[in-house]
Amino acid sequence: MSFGFQVTSRDGGARRGVMTTPHGAVETPAFMPVGTQGAVKGVTQRDLEALGAEILLSNTYHLYLRPGDGLIARQGGLHRFAGWPRPILTDSGGYQVFSLASRRTIDEQGARFQSHLDGSAHLLTPEKAADIQAQLGSDVAMVLDECLALPAEAGAARTSMERTLRWAARARTRFLEIRAGTASGVIVTNPGQAQFGIVQGGVYPDLREESAEQTVKVGFEGYAIGGLSVGEPADVMYDIVARTAPRLPEDRPRYLMGVGTPSDIVEAVARGIDLFDCVLPTRNARNGQLFTSAGRINIRNARYAEDNGPPDPACECYTCRTFSRAYLRHLIHAGEINAATLNTLHNLHFYLDTLRRIRESVSFGRFESFRVAFHQGLSGQPHDS
Amino acid sequence: MSFGFQVTSRDGGARRGVMTTPHGAVETPAFMPVGTQGAVKGVTQRDLEALGAEILLSNTYHLYLRPGDGLIARQGGLHRFAGWPRPILTDSGGYQVFSLASRRTIDEQGARFQSHLDGSAHLLTPEKAADIQAQLGSDVAMVLDECLALPAEAGAARTSMERTLRWAARARTRFLEIRAGTASGVIVTNPGQAQFGIVQGGVYPDLREESAEQTVKVGFEGYAIGGLSVGEPADVMYDIVARTAPRLPEDRPRYLMGVGTPSDIVEAVARGIDLFDCVLPTRNARNGQLFTSAGRINIRNARYAEDNGPPDPACECYTCRTFSRAYLRHLIHAGEINAATLNTLHNLHFYLDTLRRIRESVSFGRFESFRVAFHQGLSGQPHDS
Repeated sequence: MSFGFQVTSRDGGARRGVMTTPHGAVETPAFMPVGTQGAVKGVTQRDLEALGAEILLSNTYHLYLRPGDGLIARQGGLHRFAGWPRPILTDSGGYQVFSLASRRTIDEQGARFQSHLDGSAHLLTPEKAADIQAQLGSDVAMVLDECLALPAEAGAARTSMERTLRWAARARTRFLEIRAGTASGVIVTNPGQAQFGIVQGGVYPDLREESAEQTVKVGFEGYAIGGLSVGEPADVMYDIVARTAPRLPEDRPRYLMGVGTPSDIVEAVARGIDLFDCVLPTRNARNGQLFTSAGRINIRNARYAEDNGPPDPACECYTCRTFSRAYLRHLIHAGEINAATLNTLHNLHFYLDTLRRIRESVSFGRFESFRVAFHQGLSGQPHDS
Repeated sequence: MSFGFQVTSRDGGARRGVMTTPHGAVETPAFMPVGTQGAVKGVTQRDLEALGAEILLSNTYHLYLRPGDGLIARQGGLHRFAGWPRPILTDSGGYQVFSLASRRTIDEQGARFQSHLDGSAHLLTPEKAADIQAQLGSDVAMVLDECLALPAEAGAARTSMERTLRWAARARTRFLEIRAGTASGVIVTNPGQAQFGIVQGGVYPDLREESAEQTVKVGFEGYAIGGLSVGEPADVMYDIVARTAPRLPEDRPRYLMGVGTPSDIVEAVARGIDLFDCVLPTRNARNGQLFTSAGRINIRNARYAEDNGPPDPACECYTCRTFSRAYLRHLIHAGEINAATLNTLHNLHFYLDTLRRIRESVSFGRFESFRVAFHQGLSGQPHDS
């Protein structure tokens, strides 16, 4: 199967579709669980399949440093290495260079940094990010973008956005060389890989519009909106998404990177977004925070010590069908690994089920009533945390 | 279903049987995965059912301290609390008092100690251990025994063995009061609970024989051999088992506590043992040690960095069917929770499958040839660790 995307129904600004990849189809809008190092923390690949996950995100920065994209390529690529036969999207590594690496310096060539693991020196260029992802063999590769330091004045945001555009063109050139088989030294483990461009421009609508237009001119199989959900108010994010999405091609998938809360996802779908990824359901699960249809609860809370009800009475996941709040509280206080597993199973089920309900509501022209009911449910009870 | 035990076939000293409990039947010889705090570290209850585990062991000491046997009783007992509907055996807490607690002192009344969690002071008596286990509602409760400090002279071993006998009588008296409903203040969550006595006596065959005879005189639903696999040579352990097992009733299950390696289990079955528990498959999994049909390997080893074969080519578990040694090595070096899960799934499969093969070989009168082939397989390749 080669890469493609088709919108199958629309409801207001929301759309439902199917993204096809060399490793199978993904129904959109879709949420991608984050498997940073080739594994989603706390749950196995068969758990993910049982939950209905159709696509995972994996982090290029981490896999490049350990175990190395060369090793993964020699093992046949990331799908085979990680035992995950379905679609995978990899980021470019840029965000982690900005958030994890030390002594990073950025210039026109790329990002120089030291590994957070062993201090070794590395240079990540747009071409190198494409090469690494070609070796990983993800179904969707992302271009290297510059992550703007916040808060950013309009001038700095423009400078950064323009560099991201130049990097996008370089990344596309390299990607096409890889696809043509003329990139020497690169083990291409997934010849059908697609590449997405990334719109930047901070919180400035005019910069976002210009970035969108110019990124589309470079030409990619899909487009992401980056640099949001980084501390700005939710309504600012929604506004940027609302202004940017319409400037992206109707017939290509739109991916809002690193977003977000369940509410953020519903609101972004309303504004035309098709793909999401976020560490919230998995990371927060490990800290005891559970997403429920009535809001978030923190299972560490003393009020749950003798609560024999399920985490979310409206939920049909394995955790909610089998275990009580009292037991889950015990596990996390006792430091049991299983706390991470059972909480993660629940939170991922909540996210993936929310996306299933979104898709269904779009199909039946009921997205707006779903959206209202969803937000009302979340506000039905005070949050623990 | 009430507690019972029936031997269904014999082959030399080995025997196959069925132990029935209020929560279902257990085919013996059986291995009990250890779920110290009401959870087997790294694997979920549904994973355990899929692996074919029929009975779990849980630790009274840990559950008494956290979340407390009172809380678990109010939640309906340990089966309901932990979402495990099948049989559970609980130890008495004595071993953990000796190995984990601080400032412990033993006298005729019982064991005084301070919690390893918060330093709080506690007194565990034979009666109290019975009460706690009645509140947990396990299917098999163990009597409180005195754990001998090693090495022990014959005199000290005798003194300790005799105290364990007096404690066994007190534990039985209390158990019968609980069963009769005359133990006030105890929430009995499993009226069909059975109680096992424990044979002690160190490495002294005459003490073991005397302990066995006197423990049988007290009268229990089953009998354990305690105080082995604590540092003595394997042949000493095998010899004590060989001398002790025949002094225990033919029609009651025999449980060798805390044992052991796969070889130990095969050798103990040959000497008439029916039940085993051990932390080796689960604890060692978390450290990267995998039990295979050709011996143990440590998946952290550099030699596996690019090894695309399964951990054990002869194994049919999920881990071996899905993942390579290279991937499992990556996961443990990357500190991923999934390393614990996947390694534990494999090791428990290896143990449970070994017991399945033992039972089958006994049924078909081929235990001796199984035993020879099993040991030959293990010695086929040098161990990593």
